[in-house]
Amino acid sequence: MMPTRDTGHRVALDPGLIPGGNDRFSRQVEFLLEIDRLKHTFRQTILLDRSRHENSVEHSWHIAVSAMLFAEHAEGDGVDLCRVIRMLLLHDVVEIDAGDTYCYDEQGKLDQHARELRAADRLFGILAEPQAAEFRALWDEFEAAETAEARFAHAMDRFQAFLHNCATEGQVWRAHGIRRAQVEERMRPVERGAPLLWSYVRTLIDDAVGRGYLLP
Amino acid sequence: MMPTRDTGHRVALDPGLIPGGNDRFSRQVEFLLEIDRLKHTFRQTILLDRSRHENSVEHSWHIAVSAMLFAEHAEGDGVDLCRVIRMLLLHDVVEIDAGDTYCYDEQGKLDQHARELRAADRLFGILAEPQAAEFRALWDEFEAAETAEARFAHAMDRFQAFLHNCATEGQVWRAHGIRRAQVEERMRPVERGAPLLWSYVRTLIDDAVGRGYLLP
Repeated sequence: MMPTRDTGHRVALDPGLIPGGNDRFSRQVEFLLEIDRLKHTFRQTILLDRSRHENSVEHSWHIAVSAMLFAEHAEGDGVDLCRVIRMLLLHDVVEIDAGDTYCYDEQGKLDQHARELRAADRLFGILAEPQAAEFRALWDEFEAAETAEARFAHAMDRFQAFLHNCATEGQVWRAHGIRRAQVEERMRPVERGAPLLWSYVRTLIDDAVGRGYLLP
Repeated sequence: MMPTRDTGHRVALDPGLIPGGNDRFSRQVEFLLEIDRLKHTFRQTILLDRSRHENSVEHSWHIAVSAMLFAEHAEGDGVDLCRVIRMLLLHDVVEIDAGDTYCYDEQGKLDQHARELRAADRLFGILAEPQAAEFRALWDEFEAAETAEARFAHAMDRFQAFLHNCATEGQVWRAHGIRRAQVEERMRPVERGAPLLWSYVRTLIDDAVGRGYLLP
């Protein structure tokens, strides 16, 4: 698990300046400032120029754009792209408290869901109702991965990280000794959530094994 | 102007691996990889813990979430939030080529639009039609700032950077000797695009002048 760097620097604007002491608005501003901390949560994935790890905000933006790009590949015609994008923008916010858990970190994954649930309670709880419940429902829907929107969102989440691995000669896969079967399992949401991307993924996996980026 | 750091590192996956040689899909993948470079474009705005400047991808994510948060403050009831979010996700992509232009850099602003138009031609031109035109139309709509969606998008763009300035004791404003009138002018889109946020902005500007974050 890569912890969020906690700088111990809590920011607050004087609540006395909120117009009319509006509680709902005050909590919206607090949430907006709080989520700035996600810019300090780094993932295993590296940028394409290999200069550094990617943070969770950059990843969230990149996959939200990829949902726009690949919307036509979503299963069926009834997928609500706006809900996909809103899910993707929020899905990693819990990492502010829970840190990023590497997808092949079997130890870290044992308590990942419990850590993330606590984080969701605290973070979405900053907001007033019904907005807190509305944001939380998007996060819960992504986690459950059952609706067509959530499945497509997961496909986008996996596909971007996978492309980065392929385009950086498997640098992160090689560092962790990742095997083909692990990546195939990890990429299942692409098969379920964006079937037309799946043949590309399979070809790239074969290529990655052939080049030694992945262990057979 | 803060130029994008060009690492000279061009990434390409073997186009021969694209399923069926699908040109449209190949260009979507190329676009997705190309926009990774926006993570190297830094803005004047600093993160709330003041550890470093914010990059344009982080800013884009933050204001897309702020559009979700403050949707109720958009003028009228007919604002298409999904189009606002898609505009915000794409609005800074041109900075890959054009760099970020500080909003109070009068010299840099002279050729900003020309630089960004060239960048839009190149970047959205990576995509096949009609997707290239669809993405370009979102960018053009944001630039024109005429529709209710574009005005609300501009309000979110300005409001987040403004809050960061207030919450970091005007560090960037003070470094550049920014005056109250400059910020008031800069914040006009909030008055037009999100009137209910405007009274908060006015109060914070008064407070910032009082504290010496802004020159009178």
